[in-house]
Amino acid sequence: MNYKIKIMYDGSAYNGWQRQKNTDKTIQGILETSISLILGENIQLYGSGRTDAGVHAKGQIANFHTKVVVSLKQMQNSLNLMLPEDIKVLQLNAIDAKFHARRSAVKKRYSYSIWNSYISPVFERKYLYERVEKLDLNAMREASKYLVGEHDFRSFCSNRTFEKSTIRTIYSIDIEKTGDKIVIFYEGSGFLYNMVRILSGTLIEIGLGSRKPNSISALLEAKKRELAGFCAPPQGLCLDHVFYENQWEEENNAIFRGDREES
Amino acid sequence: MNYKIKIMYDGSAYNGWQRQKNTDKTIQGILETSISLILGENIQLYGSGRTDAGVHAKGQIANFHTKVVVSLKQMQNSLNLMLPEDIKVLQLNAIDAKFHARRSAVKKRYSYSIWNSYISPVFERKYLYERVEKLDLNAMREASKYLVGEHDFRSFCSNRTFEKSTIRTIYSIDIEKTGDKIVIFYEGSGFLYNMVRILSGTLIEIGLGSRKPNSISALLEAKKRELAGFCAPPQGLCLDHVFYENQWEEENNAIFRGDREES
Repeated sequence: MNYKIKIMYDGSAYNGWQRQKNTDKTIQGILETSISLILGENIQLYGSGRTDAGVHAKGQIANFHTKVVVSLKQMQNSLNLMLPEDIKVLQLNAIDAKFHARRSAVKKRYSYSIWNSYISPVFERKYLYERVEKLDLNAMREASKYLVGEHDFRSFCSNRTFEKSTIRTIYSIDIEKTGDKIVIFYEGSGFLYNMVRILSGTLIEIGLGSRKPNSISALLEAKKRELAGFCAPPQGLCLDHVFYENQWEEENNAIFRGDREES
Repeated sequence: MNYKIKIMYDGSAYNGWQRQKNTDKTIQGILETSISLILGENIQLYGSGRTDAGVHAKGQIANFHTKVVVSLKQMQNSLNLMLPEDIKVLQLNAIDAKFHARRSAVKKRYSYSIWNSYISPVFERKYLYERVEKLDLNAMREASKYLVGEHDFRSFCSNRTFEKSTIRTIYSIDIEKTGDKIVIFYEGSGFLYNMVRILSGTLIEIGLGSRKPNSISALLEAKKRELAGFCAPPQGLCLDHVFYENQWEEENNAIFRGDREES
């Protein structure tokens, strides 16, 4: 059977999503170990994509195959009891064998959170990038229009080994401000290595006035990483949601949270 | 000069507000040490009240006297650079010599946060009490009506040494639910040792159906701690705000945050 799993994590204490040989502190590694222990069978977990060290997720999606027959509810419970307190399994459901968390994904939403004032709230300190200088949201919003659409985002990725293609589509960039907190929401077909952090760093530099909004076109054209803005720190970044075609969405499957009646 | 200071802290890592001889991990202790270092003079900090180990604050108030002349802005900046990342000075202002953070306080607001579902959000895990069983908010709201007013709250305090009087006035108890999160807000003239946590534990037991809302009157009457509910864990509790008479409110003083113009 193929299982789809939805995971939330506070990435502060981890070396990112991807399993690595020289550290136990990866989300994928911890999940694979925990699931394998419960099933008594070594499974391999396929994530929708990697997240960097220190990056968070509210809705990372992964899948794994196993021949072991499980009670979904029991397995999700066991996993949440076994996992450290900063990783939670939000949903677990059986899914068609063809589903693949990365290849089946059609869209992703990321958010980048900035505290744009002097004193950031201690309760959110691990989920915000603090930047005191006042950001010009109008300039940032104007700049974001140049980024939306299908473009070659080579200037905005720090790939060490280049992907086959650096062309991606950004469907929308929304910038919201609540009090002193600014959140940039990105929706796109997929994102290159460090792309959301470099986009955020570039938008922040535009907000600071050190770049012009209309400089984005030339930046995309140039295809040179060194011309784009700084790579904004990981703690502000969160993978909010991974979108799939309707037939893969969790609404079509029995899920744990639905087991309890609302009164 | 007398200075009023407003402090926000994540209490997770501390042994509470009050300075203790056998630990460096108290909010008061760390603040006194930091302020004294900056001033070059040993000061004593008077808090509006203690918070227990693990309890948080969004608006704790304290005051201290010093003969050293300081730039408020510079001192607040220095303090925030020196303090650990889970303690922040929100405001610092000069105030009349008669002001005393505890004695001048006329009202306090506390909040107690409960996650009333299966999977609590990892990002708020240190600021919530997790309780899976569905709570009956109507019963809790009905019970809270019996608590509002001037009462002898001896049943609701775990004082080892009794205060002179255990009579206090609760002005309001509001229970709000947003998604799976329930927050109980308490406003009162003052609160006894562990009182908000025992009130919350009792209200939770009422929400679970193991006590009746109208049992509160007899409970107040009995003046016996062992008859009240459990002492709810500290991480759900936060000191939100300390209220003073108008002449002591920060609006009447130059404050740091006001120095920056909003655009």
